[in-house]
Amino acid sequence: MPTWKTRGRRGDALEDLILFSNDYYLKNGIARIDKAATPVKVVEIDGKGLVTKAYFEKKATVDFYGIAQGVFMTFDAKETNLNNFPLKNIHPHQVEYMKNIDEQGGLAFLIIHFKQCQRFFLLPFEVLYNYCLASNNGGRKSIPFDDMIAELEIHLTAGGVLHYLEAVNHYIDWKNNSI
Amino acid sequence: MPTWKTRGRRGDALEDLILFSNDYYLKNGIARIDKAATPVKVVEIDGKGLVTKAYFEKKATVDFYGIAQGVFMTFDAKETNLNNFPLKNIHPHQVEYMKNIDEQGGLAFLIIHFKQCQRFFLLPFEVLYNYCLASNNGGRKSIPFDDMIAELEIHLTAGGVLHYLEAVNHYIDWKNNSI
Repeated sequence: MPTWKTRGRRGDALEDLILFSNDYYLKNGIARIDKAATPVKVVEIDGKGLVTKAYFEKKATVDFYGIAQGVFMTFDAKETNLNNFPLKNIHPHQVEYMKNIDEQGGLAFLIIHFKQCQRFFLLPFEVLYNYCLASNNGGRKSIPFDDMIAELEIHLTAGGVLHYLEAVNHYIDWKNNSI
Repeated sequence: MPTWKTRGRRGDALEDLILFSNDYYLKNGIARIDKAATPVKVVEIDGKGLVTKAYFEKKATVDFYGIAQGVFMTFDAKETNLNNFPLKNIHPHQVEYMKNIDEQGGLAFLIIHFKQCQRFFLLPFEVLYNYCLASNNGGRKSIPFDDMIAELEIHLTAGGVLHYLEAVNHYIDWKNNSI
């Protein structure tokens, strides 16, 4: 039987890691970050409120959003088996969403898990956006691992927390210096 | 046939107004505010990716979230035919969510439409929370219309925009003075 796993839970390991980390952040009063629900267009409901016909819609936003000490952030979690991140893994309307958030003073980024080497990086919206623009003009269709920013590597703590807020702090520094 | 309308689109008029306003804000570069998808737990998918069994889940967050010029905000839209807002219309886990956002320096509030008099108010999280606490201790189960804050009334522009960001600005002033 095809189930939810078929579609919704690709890249599950990373997502679970982030959910676990968000829980840790919340319990310690560090941040409140939530996963956005997958948009499902409901077409039919039976008499008991059970959905009997529906389909998945494209997401206009990205997977996670929330706030840490006054800073709004929104990000998507991506896994890749390659030594690059293929741009086709992110939709144009999601890039547009991230651009809007960036323009309004929020943080937008990807968390990319390179499975070959088991390393995690925060990829700033600015870098993603430049690659998307270049790609639209015939440039390369992926971001190479070598373009990851060393300071934005995300570390897994001994307790199993993917401590991405540390990288977010570095991202803020990077953003201030790079403007 | 019971459809999506049966459940998901209660309070539709207000929601449509807000969506229209969000669109206006986005097009004018004023804010990016999105409606959170309704969480649907998918149980079964057919071979073509159509959902054939699913059910509605309780929302852990509130309906709208986004950012305007660096300010993260999250809010729910509520309509009432009464001259008060019944607290049972908001779930404890949503109040908890709003509390977390408030603690992290974001804004959390309700937009309430009093249909009898066709007036709209921003209700600050702080007011809501105090009523919830009192209610849990045997106090009244609703917030009277008379407790709405005059400065936080939301006005409908001639162009049909429910200009709630104006009230959000007043809310920020109110918050700074009331602390």
